[in-house]
Amino acid sequence: MESEAAPWRELQRLIEEGDQARLKAFLANLDPLDVALSVSRLDDEHRALLLSTVSPRDAATVVEQMPDAQVAGAIEQLEPGVAAAILSRLQDAERADLLEQVDDPTAEAILTAMRPEEAHATRTLREYPSDVAGGLMTLECLVYAADATVADVLKDMRLHGKRYRDFVVQYAFVTSPDGKLVGVLRLRDLLFGNPSKRVSELMVREPLSVRDTGTLDELRAFFDAHPFYGAPVVDDDGRLLGIVRRATVNEALAARSENAFLKTQGIIGGEELRTMPLLRRSRRRLAWLSANIVLNVIAASVIALYQETLAAVIALAVFLPIISDMSGCSGNQAVAVSMRELVLGLLRPSEFWRVWRKEAAVGLINGMALGLLVGAVAWAWKGNVFLGIVVGSAMMLNTIVAVSIGGTVPLLLRRMGVDPALASSPILTTVTDMCGFFLLLSLAAALLPRLIGG
Amino acid sequence: MESEAAPWRELQRLIEEGDQARLKAFLANLDPLDVALSVSRLDDEHRALLLSTVSPRDAATVVEQMPDAQVAGAIEQLEPGVAAAILSRLQDAERADLLEQVDDPTAEAILTAMRPEEAHATRTLREYPSDVAGGLMTLECLVYAADATVADVLKDMRLHGKRYRDFVVQYAFVTSPDGKLVGVLRLRDLLFGNPSKRVSELMVREPLSVRDTGTLDELRAFFDAHPFYGAPVVDDDGRLLGIVRRATVNEALAARSENAFLKTQGIIGGEELRTMPLLRRSRRRLAWLSANIVLNVIAASVIALYQETLAAVIALAVFLPIISDMSGCSGNQAVAVSMRELVLGLLRPSEFWRVWRKEAAVGLINGMALGLLVGAVAWAWKGNVFLGIVVGSAMMLNTIVAVSIGGTVPLLLRRMGVDPALASSPILTTVTDMCGFFLLLSLAAALLPRLIGG
Repeated sequence: MESEAAPWRELQRLIEEGDQARLKAFLANLDPLDVALSVSRLDDEHRALLLSTVSPRDAATVVEQMPDAQVAGAIEQLEPGVAAAILSRLQDAERADLLEQVDDPTAEAILTAMRPEEAHATRTLREYPSDVAGGLMTLECLVYAADATVADVLKDMRLHGKRYRDFVVQYAFVTSPDGKLVGVLRLRDLLFGNPSKRVSELMVREPLSVRDTGTLDELRAFFDAHPFYGAPVVDDDGRLLGIVRRATVNEALAARSENAFLKTQGIIGGEELRTMPLLRRSRRRLAWLSANIVLNVIAASVIALYQETLAAVIALAVFLPIISDMSGCSGNQAVAVSMRELVLGLLRPSEFWRVWRKEAAVGLINGMALGLLVGAVAWAWKGNVFLGIVVGSAMMLNTIVAVSIGGTVPLLLRRMGVDPALASSPILTTVTDMCGFFLLLSLAAALLPRLIGG
Repeated sequence: MESEAAPWRELQRLIEEGDQARLKAFLANLDPLDVALSVSRLDDEHRALLLSTVSPRDAATVVEQMPDAQVAGAIEQLEPGVAAAILSRLQDAERADLLEQVDDPTAEAILTAMRPEEAHATRTLREYPSDVAGGLMTLECLVYAADATVADVLKDMRLHGKRYRDFVVQYAFVTSPDGKLVGVLRLRDLLFGNPSKRVSELMVREPLSVRDTGTLDELRAFFDAHPFYGAPVVDDDGRLLGIVRRATVNEALAARSENAFLKTQGIIGGEELRTMPLLRRSRRRLAWLSANIVLNVIAASVIALYQETLAAVIALAVFLPIISDMSGCSGNQAVAVSMRELVLGLLRPSEFWRVWRKEAAVGLINGMALGLLVGAVAWAWKGNVFLGIVVGSAMMLNTIVAVSIGGTVPLLLRRMGVDPALASSPILTTVTDMCGFFLLLSLAAALLPRLIGG
């Protein structure tokens, strides 16, 4: 374990010594995954010191490997000029995202220290939510007037080749004098085609584009349907605003599904890292747990109503958690399938009854299987066939309830505008717990003489 | 709901009529998400009929929008020649992936019907697992000999422009006579640079590359560290095999994290769609539930050991599920954070004690908060302060146990080579249930006179 911890401590020591050349060499020799690991163990002060010691370009490389949540804290510690120099090496969308997480006066100071066109691009992107085309696009694209010749284009490219180096250059766009997108030039057409042709002859007319307000799902559908590396982003009037890359959309989709996973497990408010302050981590987790405990107490109160039945047949207490836990598992399987089908677009929130029929069928089969199994265990344990019938029936019925609710609750929540990743599981567990306790104890109460008599 | 169902039924009708032109128009007018939805509702026979009626290019577009699990079934129904024509429109990695899911004789027949170089590419990719560089690469890249001139390259490009249309053409590769990668040419260099230069002068020497056996995590680290659209893939001897695209790696990463989410919720063996046969869905879900129920019975058997204590203080039965459910929630939060940090590379499987210390601290704070809350409820309900102490202490101690186990179990499983997404949650739940039941009932047994006396 000592040797594993070494790169991080070595990095901290080099930062404290402030030797730029050795820091650069150290980072260059480290595997990118090790850089991320080592930097994540530093505190905000050391991270800021690291970023301001190495060159802005090296600092940008480090920033790209850090989790977003750690970058904001370090950026706030830097001189605005230094922060601006580092951020200018990032893509527009990433820069705008990071500044979103920095406090407002610092963000304003950093924007002021940027080059005017960079600051303009960043401000433009900050006007959009980070999960629509306008918030994911880059303004760095090649744009030519409709009346330019191929010679003009090639001359401009050779003249500004250095500046265009980080641009998305698989396409160049052709706009009308009022900025409307009228055509797309593929660079390969300039390369592979006859060099004597004019731009207007080479360009693809009425090119496909996405609206600046297009959602992540619309962007995914677009890139699923078209094999492009990027898509031009236009406003209401068809004016070209920028370009959104396929890779950026894929990254945003991956981040969204990871976020959904964290929410289903009760980690809300974005990712949690173990390097965050203890009280902040406790508080965020407790927020979700507190809501959950209220639901739990409500569910358990069903047991309080049947204390007499339970006291008469104490063996039932052994089966209460089995029935509620197993139903919860069955229900969560149905939640997962619905969430997945919603994400893939294979399911509409309106298809409540179709999902219910499909899930009820699975619930009937699996409920019978689990009910027979648990019922047989109960019968064998106490030698009372009626206990087996009560426990097995409750297990079967509650499995049907659980998968019905698990399959349909994500649809209902989506329709109501509530995030299904966050609320599906707590709602499911509460209802299946209540229902499972009620089924077992009320069936037992009805057959009480037989259970005691056995 | 009738209007929602319409596109799918309309599609089925057009397929049965077999009118190619109207089918094409119908698909072209539909939103890509609606195409996916409509096609997913058809059965394998109708899907195969659709794919063989429209042109191979249109069929390939439809295939790209279908979930993988549905494509294989449809492909098996097609004539090998038709299937080969459709698959040849897909990327190498996607084609190899799909054929992996088709039964062997059919796959062999389709490969035989392909153009030789395509069949060769597909067979090469099928030799690799689908989640390493060799299984994700495409063989369609531009390769030139080290002694070629720029004029040779440009002439070849113009000559074969049509064939290269679907290639990854941001880069061209330069190889030695024995096939070793010696340089990379950026097409923009050909465009932006002086056209009179030679290839060997323009190329980047000793280019970065990835090994064919490189894992998904290594590929992610590579693309995190370098702003490339693709990376050349080389074998043990440095020979160029193909190119792996950033977008392909991102898609594979997204698929992996979605798969991990499904596993944590008990959907194993790949994605489940509600269009799959009922018995297959039931059986797959039941496989996971059956393992779970054994664990559940083991946990619940702790209650059986304390039946006398429970019979004496029946109110405890109300708190058993509250303590086990809440501990399960707390533990799953810790699981989610560990899984996320493992995926991000911010955590090594060897860091058991660091994680344990961090989680125990959170567990102590949240355990005290939840313990005070639940203990107060117990006290208020029965008016017995000792009941409150027993319930609150069990809640607190079990929360500490749950987060300790939740945080560390993914690390242990990863070390043992077991998939943490699949096994973490069942193991956690079993241990926290057992431990929660034991803590509550044994504390109650120790203080029994006080609980009854109250």
